[in-house]
Amino acid sequence: MNKSTSLKVRLPVFVLVLEVVIIALYAVFVTYDENADAKFQNNETNPMENSVYRDYPYFADVQVMIFIGFGCLLAFFRFYGFSGMVFNFLTATFSIQWAIVIQGFFQFNYGGKIHLGVINLLYAEFACAVVLISYGAVLGKTSPVQLLVMALLEIPIFSVTEWAVLKYIRINDAGGSILIHLFACYFGLGVTFVLYRPSLNKGHAKEITSYSSDILSVMGTLFLWVFWPSFNSALTIKGDDQHRAILHTFIGLSSSTITAFALSAVFNKRGKLTMADIQNVTLAGGVTVGASVDMMISPVAAYALGVMGCTACFFGYKYLTPFMAQRLRIQDQCGIHNLHGLTGLISSIAGICAIILATEETYGPSMYQIFSHRAPPVDDPKFLELQKLIPELKPGLGRTGQEQALYQVAAIFSTIAAASIGGLLTGFVMKLSFMASPSDEDCFDDELFFDMPADFSSAEFKMPMNHEDKEQMSSENTKV
Amino acid sequence: MNKSTSLKVRLPVFVLVLEVVIIALYAVFVTYDENADAKFQNNETNPMENSVYRDYPYFADVQVMIFIGFGCLLAFFRFYGFSGMVFNFLTATFSIQWAIVIQGFFQFNYGGKIHLGVINLLYAEFACAVVLISYGAVLGKTSPVQLLVMALLEIPIFSVTEWAVLKYIRINDAGGSILIHLFACYFGLGVTFVLYRPSLNKGHAKEITSYSSDILSVMGTLFLWVFWPSFNSALTIKGDDQHRAILHTFIGLSSSTITAFALSAVFNKRGKLTMADIQNVTLAGGVTVGASVDMMISPVAAYALGVMGCTACFFGYKYLTPFMAQRLRIQDQCGIHNLHGLTGLISSIAGICAIILATEETYGPSMYQIFSHRAPPVDDPKFLELQKLIPELKPGLGRTGQEQALYQVAAIFSTIAAASIGGLLTGFVMKLSFMASPSDEDCFDDELFFDMPADFSSAEFKMPMNHEDKEQMSSENTKV
Amino acid sequence: MNKSTSLKVRLPVFVLVLEVVIIALYAVFVTYDENADAKFQNNETNPMENSVYRDYPYFADVQVMIFIGFGCLLAFFRFYGFSGMVFNFLTATFSIQWAIVIQGFFQFNYGGKIHLGVINLLYAEFACAVVLISYGAVLGKTSPVQLLVMALLEIPIFSVTEWAVLKYIRINDAGGSILIHLFACYFGLGVTFVLYRPSLNKGHAKEITSYSSDILSVMGTLFLWVFWPSFNSALTIKGDDQHRAILHTFIGLSSSTITAFALSAVFNKRGKLTMADIQNVTLAGGVTVGASVDMMISPVAAYALGVMGCTACFFGYKYLTPFMAQRLRIQDQCGIHNLHGLTGLISSIAGICAIILATEETYGPSMYQIFSHRAPPVDDPKFLELQKLIPELKPGLGRTGQEQALYQVAAIFSTIAAASIGGLLTGFVMKLSFMASPSDEDCFDDELFFDMPADFSSAEFKMPMNHEDKEQMSSENTKV
Repeated sequence: MNKSTSLKVRLPVFVLVLEVVIIALYAVFVTYDENADAKFQNNETNPMENSVYRDYPYFADVQVMIFIGFGCLLAFFRFYGFSGMVFNFLTATFSIQWAIVIQGFFQFNYGGKIHLGVINLLYAEFACAVVLISYGAVLGKTSPVQLLVMALLEIPIFSVTEWAVLKYIRINDAGGSILIHLFACYFGLGVTFVLYRPSLNKGHAKEITSYSSDILSVMGTLFLWVFWPSFNSALTIKGDDQHRAILHTFIGLSSSTITAFALSAVFNKRGKLTMADIQNVTLAGGVTVGASVDMMISPVAAYALGVMGCTACFFGYKYLTPFMAQRLRIQDQCGIHNLHGLTGLISSIAGICAIILATEETYGPSMYQIFSHRAPPVDDPKFLELQKLIPELKPGLGRTGQEQALYQVAAIFSTIAAASIGGLLTGFVMKLSFMASPSDEDCFDDELFFDMPADFSSAEFKMPMNHEDKEQMSSENTKV
Repeated sequence: MNKSTSLKVRLPVFVLVLEVVIIALYAVFVTYDENADAKFQNNETNPMENSVYRDYPYFADVQVMIFIGFGCLLAFFRFYGFSGMVFNFLTATFSIQWAIVIQGFFQFNYGGKIHLGVINLLYAEFACAVVLISYGAVLGKTSPVQLLVMALLEIPIFSVTEWAVLKYIRINDAGGSILIHLFACYFGLGVTFVLYRPSLNKGHAKEITSYSSDILSVMGTLFLWVFWPSFNSALTIKGDDQHRAILHTFIGLSSSTITAFALSAVFNKRGKLTMADIQNVTLAGGVTVGASVDMMISPVAAYALGVMGCTACFFGYKYLTPFMAQRLRIQDQCGIHNLHGLTGLISSIAGICAIILATEETYGPSMYQIFSHRAPPVDDPKFLELQKLIPELKPGLGRTGQEQALYQVAAIFSTIAAASIGGLLTGFVMKLSFMASPSDEDCFDDELFFDMPADFSSAEFKMPMNHEDKEQMSSENTKV
Repeated sequence: MNKSTSLKVRLPVFVLVLEVVIIALYAVFVTYDENADAKFQNNETNPMENSVYRDYPYFADVQVMIFIGFGCLLAFFRFYGFSGMVFNFLTATFSIQWAIVIQGFFQFNYGGKIHLGVINLLYAEFACAVVLISYGAVLGKTSPVQLLVMALLEIPIFSVTEWAVLKYIRINDAGGSILIHLFACYFGLGVTFVLYRPSLNKGHAKEITSYSSDILSVMGTLFLWVFWPSFNSALTIKGDDQHRAILHTFIGLSSSTITAFALSAVFNKRGKLTMADIQNVTLAGGVTVGASVDMMISPVAAYALGVMGCTACFFGYKYLTPFMAQRLRIQDQCGIHNLHGLTGLISSIAGICAIILATEETYGPSMYQIFSHRAPPVDDPKFLELQKLIPELKPGLGRTGQEQALYQVAAIFSTIAAASIGGLLTGFVMKLSFMASPSDEDCFDDELFFDMPADFSSAEFKMPMNHEDKEQMSSENTKV
């Protein structure tokens, strides 16, 4: 057992190969973008002219979310804190350096060279977030080698999907509800479907939290909560669009938070609060406002979206996750389908409504900047008129709201399809025998992959579990 | 007992009602300000023209203080970590969404519409900070329902006071020593006076810390410490005023920190350090520099203020807090009267001195920007002169330093009065029977409001129930 | 025993004296710089004209690294969490306020007055980082009084060295690999050499971690990791130089992180991961890119540097640290020689290569801004030519790449020499009898300097240690 999960050879060899590949790719393809290249003497420091001053603050905020927010949130298991936090660290760092090249090929490719700047890092962190969300579905049941393999495959599949959707379908998705949350969710579900472990449906003795692990996890939630407005607004048009993105995200989060507390209490046997709800359901609002986050939906709509998303997410944890595990062989460890799937769908629908309802009365001419595909084509006389009002306006495709709505729908389905298929294939690769996958017995246990300090003892928590453990678990097995 | 503290009905109903009210108010009154409204095509991105770029960084810093700083700091009890951190989360999110409307009516009301931008969120967070400071006085003895009620009432009382003081008395208080710290302190003391629990004066078995809770609490202190300069400088005039606010806050904090260590050691029986001092007294400097934080008080004055505030705060904890509990029936759980009251008073006095001593030699003409009420009225010829030097100067009331000082004094007293009365009234409402207030026995225990993980056990920590105590209690009961 | 380590008199007296001295110095010498002085009406708010808007965001990021990053990282010992985190807090606050004056005399001295602005605070934080790195060498074996003495002496020695190297030798060291990391490392080694404790070479029973202390320490690592790009880019030329600094630091960190995981697994007996590696070795890349961080070294070079630095750092922990302790009487508690010494040397060499290889083809004329000492002197006709291309260019010394390289070498050796000698002298002062130095028995134990909560018990962990403890320790006694 222990032998077959030793990282002694597998991990180093795998990392070494990856590093050689990445060094080769960086050496041949990666160069500086003109804001980072000394040659251009581009010491222009106006934040809006120079991407470093425009994007770095948002990049830094997202960094905190990825490494500290996710890291703490995923450390909620009593015996799996090292793994939750540290494998998040490993997977994130690899995903970002890998995404820089892969996304670069599709989005920052100028004459065969990838032009590197802070903006690429920002995009790479979004790709990284996708991997980490999917990670939530298989938390506790995978080895670091499997996680690296997942990142290795998910990044390209995501990048292609992202690129295809943006280039051919052309959608509005400022907060990434479709491309980030829906993709990540269905990819993760695909993976976990393949990695199905029947015996874990009865629950696992180590699948519990501790007093300190719950607090640590709440800290993670708070870091995600605090910086989510930066996450949702990082890639919007600057100015009023970005401003609205910040406002809507904040409002959506705060309404979903108080809703989560209310639901947690009302559906608890003894009228008490459940930490798992506070750690996860409170965040639903951030995803739900995503697709329409930069639009003129009005503050009250953001508030209502937070309440709706939170409610859907809560009942998802309560009924859907167990159902999927029992009936559909989909063990969604952290309930990503609730926090990213259901909310992502609601968000997408809200986005579609916002697109259909958008009018020049509300937006003024800048409507054609936000809904850039609705801008008239270059040859259209209306385009010249508009350009008088907004010099920097780019020609569009002259789509109507209804047309754009249909494209959004197309994007939703194709994203879900690509993600699910990609996830299934990735799952099969991760299942290969030399991946050091832990036995059912050793799931949710740091002991397997770490030298543990003397005060750590998970030994007495053995499967099969007794009744009290099951109770424990039921309140805890739904997270992120 | 347990029945009467169940949140099953109370919390959800209460939250639901609040959400309906807030949705209605947002729907009718809240719209975007012109920096957030697409119609104005206001994609101006110069940080100083567009509030989002001017204010968002400070907003984000204050967010960290509110949710992570306060959250960790208040989690210092061994058996009350969940409640300390999580009720802070609940109270803060509700307070901010509530303050957006209430403060909006008073400060961002244009033709019956509340214009929403990041700046409102920033103001709302200061209102939220007020509630959380007051929360410190009743930590461990209140149910989440009571805390929401407190926020529900404190926000309007604070907003009216703030608005009245700023509109009619007109004061200088950049760091909020008067309007934030003094108000929050005396409001909290008013509440706790009404919620007086005689039996807790003899101490409570669960009123203890643990090794990890102390460390968590210090982390909270550090987050508050690190971002305090942003808190004190967020609302100052931009440019050199904001610059001084940052410098003074930092200097005041660092001098109060080393002073706290020294005092902690010298007054400890065995010459050791006490964590409670390091968690609280170190922060005194941040409050003490508040009222004069943007003035030309010179760096050494900021340093001295830090030392003074820290000393007052330390002795407050040592002698005043116990005295107030024993003699005045005021149980100030976290000693907010030391960290926010005494320091706030010193800060206010320092501010008054700085105002009286302010001269054009030191400030140049921009004195009339910082002390805007001392600027000559529009009809005064001196005003035109000054406007030549500072085009953006606004006409003032032509107050002298002495006059302004008197208005500061008036503001101090009226703020304290409004806060105390408001606190008392709020306390009576919170005392109503259906508020799920915990019994003395159940104070400082997460068990009461949370499903606890298996490793949590506060059971053996019972209150000292010797014979005389029982007598005491029974006599109290007869009183009631 | 207890008597001789009591802080009752020593600490307060020492702090009091320091405060009197600092107040006197601030009063006489410290005034506002022109961006912070109201008189200049300098309400210029363009981020690049006004240092507060240019520097404050980086200052805030570095604050988080110093107080939270270092604080958590140094709290990795099971029984020494309070001390690790809290003494870091004390030492940092004192170091910064002290550095403001000392560095001020050398670098911000205008007509006998120290002009204070956020930029000074930023410099002071770098000086503070130097002290905290050195602190890592003596962690667990020193009293707070000794640490304050160390800061008291190290700050001036560092400031003189920094000033002399920058003024007379004139080097490129944007990330501070030479002046910060090498200085801090060899100063710390000098101190610990003098404070040598033979009995601790056998290891100490309390020199172990716990499950929660390891997690806390990883959080510290993550905070350092996340904000390191701000640390390395804070003092570079704005524009593309700063942009590259951010990119290189991020890339270097992520390559060193995955390398650290691989090495940790391959050299572990059972093919498991060691937390000490993840807490420390992952950060090596941040130091290694330091000296060339703003140069056109290409992204792949940053990646390779991360891998190299990480490898050197890892083997340093494995072989060099034990060797130094056994043979050279140098007990490097946290292995700063690996994380800051070896990596600093590699970084310096890489910087020299980058300097020699720098050409106008790659950099364009702005080469003479980055390598300012290679710019032609004012009388050289080439200087006028260049000034046409870059108006703000300053005249230099007309050094060739080779010449500059030699000056870099000179700087490396003189920095190491000054640091070592300074460290030795400081060590002798710290060894004086009234410094409350803990006995060997009481090392790594919070009990000695803190009132401990009831759940703390290090009592049964007494020296002499048994075998299993030693094993424990060997994997844990090398950190930061």
